[in-house]
Amino acid sequence: MVESRTYPSERLVEFSSRMFRHFGVPAHEAALAADVLAAADLRGIDSHGVARLHSYFDMLELGRINPRPKPRIVRETPSTATVDGDNGLGLVVGPWANEVALRKAQAVGSGWVSVCNSNHYGIAGYYPLKALERDLIGWSMTNSTKLVAPLWGAERMLGTNPIAIAFPGLEEPPIVIDLATPAVAYGKIEIAKRRGERIPRGWAIDARGEPTEDPQGMIDGGALLPLGSDREHGGHKGYALGMMVDVLVAVLSGANWGPFTPPFALRQEVPARSVGKGIGHFFGALQIAGFIEPLEFKRQIDDLVRTFRATRPAPGTAGPLIPGDPEREAHAERSRNGVPLVLPVVEDLRDISRRTGVPFD
Amino acid sequence: MVESRTYPSERLVEFSSRMFRHFGVPAHEAALAADVLAAADLRGIDSHGVARLHSYFDMLELGRINPRPKPRIVRETPSTATVDGDNGLGLVVGPWANEVALRKAQAVGSGWVSVCNSNHYGIAGYYPLKALERDLIGWSMTNSTKLVAPLWGAERMLGTNPIAIAFPGLEEPPIVIDLATPAVAYGKIEIAKRRGERIPRGWAIDARGEPTEDPQGMIDGGALLPLGSDREHGGHKGYALGMMVDVLVAVLSGANWGPFTPPFALRQEVPARSVGKGIGHFFGALQIAGFIEPLEFKRQIDDLVRTFRATRPAPGTAGPLIPGDPEREAHAERSRNGVPLVLPVVEDLRDISRRTGVPFD
Repeated sequence: MVESRTYPSERLVEFSSRMFRHFGVPAHEAALAADVLAAADLRGIDSHGVARLHSYFDMLELGRINPRPKPRIVRETPSTATVDGDNGLGLVVGPWANEVALRKAQAVGSGWVSVCNSNHYGIAGYYPLKALERDLIGWSMTNSTKLVAPLWGAERMLGTNPIAIAFPGLEEPPIVIDLATPAVAYGKIEIAKRRGERIPRGWAIDARGEPTEDPQGMIDGGALLPLGSDREHGGHKGYALGMMVDVLVAVLSGANWGPFTPPFALRQEVPARSVGKGIGHFFGALQIAGFIEPLEFKRQIDDLVRTFRATRPAPGTAGPLIPGDPEREAHAERSRNGVPLVLPVVEDLRDISRRTGVPFD
Repeated sequence: MVESRTYPSERLVEFSSRMFRHFGVPAHEAALAADVLAAADLRGIDSHGVARLHSYFDMLELGRINPRPKPRIVRETPSTATVDGDNGLGLVVGPWANEVALRKAQAVGSGWVSVCNSNHYGIAGYYPLKALERDLIGWSMTNSTKLVAPLWGAERMLGTNPIAIAFPGLEEPPIVIDLATPAVAYGKIEIAKRRGERIPRGWAIDARGEPTEDPQGMIDGGALLPLGSDREHGGHKGYALGMMVDVLVAVLSGANWGPFTPPFALRQEVPARSVGKGIGHFFGALQIAGFIEPLEFKRQIDDLVRTFRATRPAPGTAGPLIPGDPEREAHAERSRNGVPLVLPVVEDLRDISRRTGVPFD
């Protein structure tokens, strides 16, 4: 059991927001950025909430992120746009660009926005949730620092490049898909290391490109494996999905792709060359009413959700979940009882507090 | 080694086309349908070429497919449409609906078409290849008869629900992604059975929902596992991708989804109920020029392709491939030397020949 302390989400939002303001981020954008981080913490995706706040702090402190960006559309058609994020916080540029996609979808049926010159944008799943509020199907993708090997590669070439998409139900909660394209999250490697445990085959390779069950072997210059892990189990598919994300978010927008995607944390290696501007995102939205009566769509989603919940369970399980179930349950529980933070994260926040003067606890 | 005979692709196209015409399919549509099948055979995706012709024959013979469909747009916005395929051949309805997506992308930057009331449409990768010819990024998805269990399910609930997408290069060949969402293709189970071999863990479960290494265990009421195979290796991700495809192709269009998707071959079980019309497809297209100069995009794709080819190889491999490499190599080889057909497929074609009077060999 890792020791942790629990905080009401509102307090973490207030702290994050004040930290962003400390660096000159305008108040409404600071609040927005804090809200994106809180969505991760509430939904149980601990790696993408305030656990990252110290990295944002470092980048702002060093002047590597523009606290007052003016994102702009550099090219567009009625249903598409390319956005230059002006090297702003991804937590600010992401919602701005997502809004462009949502408005286009409301106007002409769909909206697709590729973004360059941005930074880490929080959880991919935040953005499709915004689309749901307007009866749109929302998509989001991003790239990030290299961590994943292509199938048959011996080195890191791709980020964890997530894909998120959400579909609204009527009486049932929405289906919310938010998946990264390696077999497993990097956080699980770190947890295994902390606990002194081995990792399963199929998660990672070491620096020589050999399969490893030692978390340290992956950390010391190894790489995560793509979803599917090896050729026999479809590792070429996870690799292809990661590459698809990279092209849509970065090649299409003029951002850096693959191994040249710039790092988010200070300890990460700086890429050998630059092939574009910042990191990239991709947002999409489809107007449900452009295809079918939204009420009929939602009734069918309810039917589908209930049908899949009624699947005969595999032995030893309670049966399939619906994508988004675990995050929604975490959200309900943490909204009531607060967000547990492990002590190293608490220490990070205290350090930010000391260095900015923003009170923490 | 399985015995096979080799035929020039043109001869198979001629035979397929004449078979379709025999059932009243108009000449240009028969040629188109034959072309889609040939694309599979040439690209080495043997399961989706003339190996399926007898199933099309059966469905047409029994009057279950409309040989002269009038596909129509039943709802649209400038960038989206819903198409009713009038129960035609998917090989005819698919290209028709894909064309709607391509035209919308040329007009307003992107085009997205969800299709109901259709049938098996061949390889998913055929459609994005058409988009490439017009400097568009093409997408295609479809559902199909249930064969795959959700993670933690003990029964078939989803089709193999493929996702295809293609990106053009300049001097390098295009990146062509075409992946089904289970860990492995059903054809590999059949091959293992024919050879009397075991199958690897992570491919399938048996009728009780237990992991099985016996191909017959999967065939007799078992199911394929989603990409990722188990919870530890990301099986929830493959399951979510399969569900995503089902919603986009079927819930959005008013087709049948999940376990209610109608079968393509006669030996397959008929679903318990109908929740829509036929099977569903989803086509998308993005205008590259709507985001970035196409020449710049293609140069970056070339750079990306070369960068990934130069990845340090994993021990015992020649290094990563680029998605689409194997299919392109097969296409080059088979265009020169012909398409090898295993004897049971040759027998199927002879049977069609006897029953239709279309000469084969």
